[in-house]
Amino acid sequence: MHKVRFLPHNKEITVPDGENLIRAAMEAGVHINASCGGEGVCGKCRVIVEDGTVEDGITEMLSQDDMEKGYRQACLARIKSDLTVRIPVESTIDAKVLNLQATPRRTARIRHIDLEELREKELFVPPVEKKYLELPEPTVQDNLPDVTRLVSFLKANHDEHRIEVDLSVIRKIPAILREENFKVTATLARPVRDSGKTRIINVQPGDKTDRNFAIAMDIGTTTIYGQVIDLKNGKILSQYGDFNGQISYGEDVISRLVYAEKPGGLETLHGVVINTINKILKRIILKAGVDPDEISTITLAGNTTMTQLLLRIDPGYIRRFPYVPSATLYPPLRASGLGMELGDHVTALVYPAVSSYVGGDIVAGVMGSGMYRAEELTLYMDIGTNAEIVIGNQDWLACAAASAGPAFEGGGIKLGMRATEGAIEDFSIDPITLEPMNITIGNVRPKGICGSGLIIAVATMFEMGIIDNRGKFDRDLDTDRIRVVDDICEYVLAWADETQIDRDVVLTEPDIENLIRAKGAMYSGCMTLLEEVGLNVHDLDRIIMAGGFGSYVDLEKAMTIGLLPEIDPERVMFIGNGSLMGARMSSLTNRIRKDVVEVTKKMTNFELSETSSFMDKYVAALFLPHTDMNQFPKLKARLKSRKALKNSNS
Amino acid sequence: MHKVRFLPHNKEITVPDGENLIRAAMEAGVHINASCGGEGVCGKCRVIVEDGTVEDGITEMLSQDDMEKGYRQACLARIKSDLTVRIPVESTIDAKVLNLQATPRRTARIRHIDLEELREKELFVPPVEKKYLELPEPTVQDNLPDVTRLVSFLKANHDEHRIEVDLSVIRKIPAILREENFKVTATLARPVRDSGKTRIINVQPGDKTDRNFAIAMDIGTTTIYGQVIDLKNGKILSQYGDFNGQISYGEDVISRLVYAEKPGGLETLHGVVINTINKILKRIILKAGVDPDEISTITLAGNTTMTQLLLRIDPGYIRRFPYVPSATLYPPLRASGLGMELGDHVTALVYPAVSSYVGGDIVAGVMGSGMYRAEELTLYMDIGTNAEIVIGNQDWLACAAASAGPAFEGGGIKLGMRATEGAIEDFSIDPITLEPMNITIGNVRPKGICGSGLIIAVATMFEMGIIDNRGKFDRDLDTDRIRVVDDICEYVLAWADETQIDRDVVLTEPDIENLIRAKGAMYSGCMTLLEEVGLNVHDLDRIIMAGGFGSYVDLEKAMTIGLLPEIDPERVMFIGNGSLMGARMSSLTNRIRKDVVEVTKKMTNFELSETSSFMDKYVAALFLPHTDMNQFPKLKARLKSRKALKNSNS
Repeated sequence: MHKVRFLPHNKEITVPDGENLIRAAMEAGVHINASCGGEGVCGKCRVIVEDGTVEDGITEMLSQDDMEKGYRQACLARIKSDLTVRIPVESTIDAKVLNLQATPRRTARIRHIDLEELREKELFVPPVEKKYLELPEPTVQDNLPDVTRLVSFLKANHDEHRIEVDLSVIRKIPAILREENFKVTATLARPVRDSGKTRIINVQPGDKTDRNFAIAMDIGTTTIYGQVIDLKNGKILSQYGDFNGQISYGEDVISRLVYAEKPGGLETLHGVVINTINKILKRIILKAGVDPDEISTITLAGNTTMTQLLLRIDPGYIRRFPYVPSATLYPPLRASGLGMELGDHVTALVYPAVSSYVGGDIVAGVMGSGMYRAEELTLYMDIGTNAEIVIGNQDWLACAAASAGPAFEGGGIKLGMRATEGAIEDFSIDPITLEPMNITIGNVRPKGICGSGLIIAVATMFEMGIIDNRGKFDRDLDTDRIRVVDDICEYVLAWADETQIDRDVVLTEPDIENLIRAKGAMYSGCMTLLEEVGLNVHDLDRIIMAGGFGSYVDLEKAMTIGLLPEIDPERVMFIGNGSLMGARMSSLTNRIRKDVVEVTKKMTNFELSETSSFMDKYVAALFLPHTDMNQFPKLKARLKSRKALKNSNS
Repeated sequence: MHKVRFLPHNKEITVPDGENLIRAAMEAGVHINASCGGEGVCGKCRVIVEDGTVEDGITEMLSQDDMEKGYRQACLARIKSDLTVRIPVESTIDAKVLNLQATPRRTARIRHIDLEELREKELFVPPVEKKYLELPEPTVQDNLPDVTRLVSFLKANHDEHRIEVDLSVIRKIPAILREENFKVTATLARPVRDSGKTRIINVQPGDKTDRNFAIAMDIGTTTIYGQVIDLKNGKILSQYGDFNGQISYGEDVISRLVYAEKPGGLETLHGVVINTINKILKRIILKAGVDPDEISTITLAGNTTMTQLLLRIDPGYIRRFPYVPSATLYPPLRASGLGMELGDHVTALVYPAVSSYVGGDIVAGVMGSGMYRAEELTLYMDIGTNAEIVIGNQDWLACAAASAGPAFEGGGIKLGMRATEGAIEDFSIDPITLEPMNITIGNVRPKGICGSGLIIAVATMFEMGIIDNRGKFDRDLDTDRIRVVDDICEYVLAWADETQIDRDVVLTEPDIENLIRAKGAMYSGCMTLLEEVGLNVHDLDRIIMAGGFGSYVDLEKAMTIGLLPEIDPERVMFIGNGSLMGARMSSLTNRIRKDVVEVTKKMTNFELSETSSFMDKYVAALFLPHTDMNQFPKLKARLKSRKALKNSNS
């Protein structure tokens, strides 16, 4: 770890060895002009290393003289010792103003799965186990059927009772037993309920106990993610995400529902999602270096529509009043029976849903995050096209869904994109020159902006007074970056020659409106649900955020735009893809599978559209941060002091 | 009912109105020459109706004068009143001798399934039930998922708990519920074990409770039989049997096992038997006037090899020492998953086996006949190519299998055939002229002889001294019916012009040898098994015979050839196709399904080939009836008195 001091701001931060200097500056809340996203092209991010050592950071844009003076391009420099770094700024600027340019990042703690914690809490009940057995060979006095030989041995020597055997095992056992002289590994699938039976789902020749794997999958409307998990230690061996092939039949849930009602539509959408799943399975299994026969189980989670399409269940009544799904609980299914290219022995477990719009993906998040067994009163928010909200703890749970639109995932935004390479994910702005500092995923020239970048950009511009509380630009500002094209006012984040797309990357007023609508839906949904259960923001012990809208979100910025209520950032956790996390957890322990049915029964669903106060709350939330500034007292105070400082400086 | 008195024999019998006169004579033990099987062609069966009325019996073979004298052809005449009938015989023949010509038939009582008896004994636990439900329609306050609505209603109003729902039901429920305003019939499949769950396997619009059907099937090596059963009353609505398509790949079990080991052989044999099953299903479902969707369950029984081929399980080790099947217990399976053309909701239950050569067909017979819950010590014999034997009662069961060869089913017999139209099924012989009396199935000209006909013919000829105890003809007898062709001695049952096949129907010495080997295997198997369990014939309370070798067998004749031990005929029962009967019983009550696992565990299997005394017993049984005549004291006495009579007459 190295200490880096930035001058003249006099801000210090501790970062790991090799950290990128411009990212360290952003994290410390130090603005450095940087248009090109960190690829060293624009040459604007020159800084002077006054003390200490950096690696790289030298390009042809720096003269010999510059280099000798200690100039480096921050975006390319990697920190190799304690440093003192000076940002060249006009000497007249007050440090106070400098420190208004940006604020240190306050990202949520990321919650990881801890298998040891599960073990300690006795929550670790492996759903599939392998046992190595050396069976006696048959003789005329002992010519038990092959299956009976195996089952009797398990009873006598491993205290295994109440066993049933799959047809696929009966089919393969004669050959497998005789491959290595009746030395075999049996795969035992444990019952979810205590009254259930242990199923023998596979037999393999010899000792294969160290090769036992599971698959977790998140079936998203846009993207499907899969992981191969090592059941010995819970490690993710490989992961891959790909667009859900159903996108060709409609971008969002509603258009899929409409398509499913056409003749053959349901079958088409089912086939297409199975194709995508098989593509991902093939890739992650190959990447993990695993034999397909070694996969013992698969768990899938998705919203109610995605799940019904996956299972080829007519979803027609999901979008019709009063919004009735066919089922919310699904029996264990043979994966190959659904068309998945997995062994005949693999059972697919599909996460149950609560209602038409609070699906298995949310239930998976509630299970995977551990919220359902926590004492703390928790607000769980899955931030995406559909904003789902769960409030509660181990005793009770309430949930609701609101349509936020696709802004958080870069949809409906002119240069919006998903959180992949080239997306502007972090941003600050120079309050004097209004020049940007863009940080992109992968430190490459920008292609567009993703959800988390959008939140930060809009929050920063609002706090700096560049946009007003309706999201409109101050057209009087003296910069060529704010301009009107075809009657639409926009800010140029990066000029065409600094990008990968040969045109300017811009942020427009309609983009900001879309973001405001999305955060308004999310926030008013939370407030309505809190009100319905007779609570308010102050009662919350913590917030768990899930969503694929970016690898992380700056909590202060999320509160600045009014996406999150103001709460101590220490109480906010981020779990990323909650659906995938829950699927993975279910692969690791049967406790989740056992508990989930009770949890879904416990989750009381509120239809926001049927709640009279929701529309009022939504309209009130269509401002930055809200019509009622008193709901955001910290921001109110900051804006007040900023105004005072500005007035004193002018 | 009419009384018929035959003269000069002075024998009387009571028969139902319309009974065929020649069959009545046979039943009474009265010989009438009749070569053509009852089609009126040979004209030999002329009798004089001295009193009473018959219908028909008149052909161009009778002159006007004959008719006026009361002559009729017995094979065509139907009894319409009490009768006195005179058989024209040489007046010099003593009535005692006449009465040696034939003996009255003593067939076994036929055991039928009695649903009322099951109800009384509380054994009637229907495996599938239908319930008609009028569900409340969804509203915004009550927008439960469709499945939850159904399950909740069953809980609240029908005290149904622990319910699970099949994917096929989840798939169809949205449309079905809305077809008749949420009025539906749910099909509930009851768990076999008390700890299990009730499964909802089907939903239908409106009230369909009176339409609930099952299928029972016997998967025989040669023939497959299917029945449609009405689950309301246990009635058989339709039945059909067809050759197992696998016959093209080998006539017997061993040749199928050999074929299954060829590349693709297992898949071929599996596909072919499924094709035959589908052909039968189609036919019986159509014939029963049932909609395929109304079939709720199917039960199948077959020998171990047939079952493994049906389930596509490699049967390779069944024929290899030490004769190990893959499994003897099979999980419930989705019928459509096996390729059967039945609804997705239909579960196939496959009868468990005991060992490689005591299969599910025998277990089905043990269950279906009720032997497993009887106090009486029972000998169960399934008489076919493979002779299976079970001895025991409600407390213990022992079983064994012996290879009898195909003689009982007409195989390996020169003019042998299965018990279908044109088969000689009954027979007697004139001791003076040695002319035959053939009765065929369907009263048509003979095509051949079936198992039960063969047993009667051989027994009759032995008792009359026409063949000796090694089955060899007395070549000194004065008749052209006994002749030597190509060094093989044979008896002509019917001349070519009296048959349907344009050649003589004969019974040869090799035919008789085959029958002796078959009965020898059966009998010595029974004796060996009795000895192994420390019992002998006198300990038996009853014998249950099963098998497709004929619609009935004459018990005295079966004892005469030494197939059955001598036992009071009242204690012998015939159940026909035991496999099919057991499959049908399982369709009617879950008690059988529940008990069967324990029963198979209880059935101790003896490998006759590994039992040292079996071969000695077999060799001793290769005579008519046996080397040790003392095992057949009644027959010994009859032969003695016959000899005395013959001596006194000559």
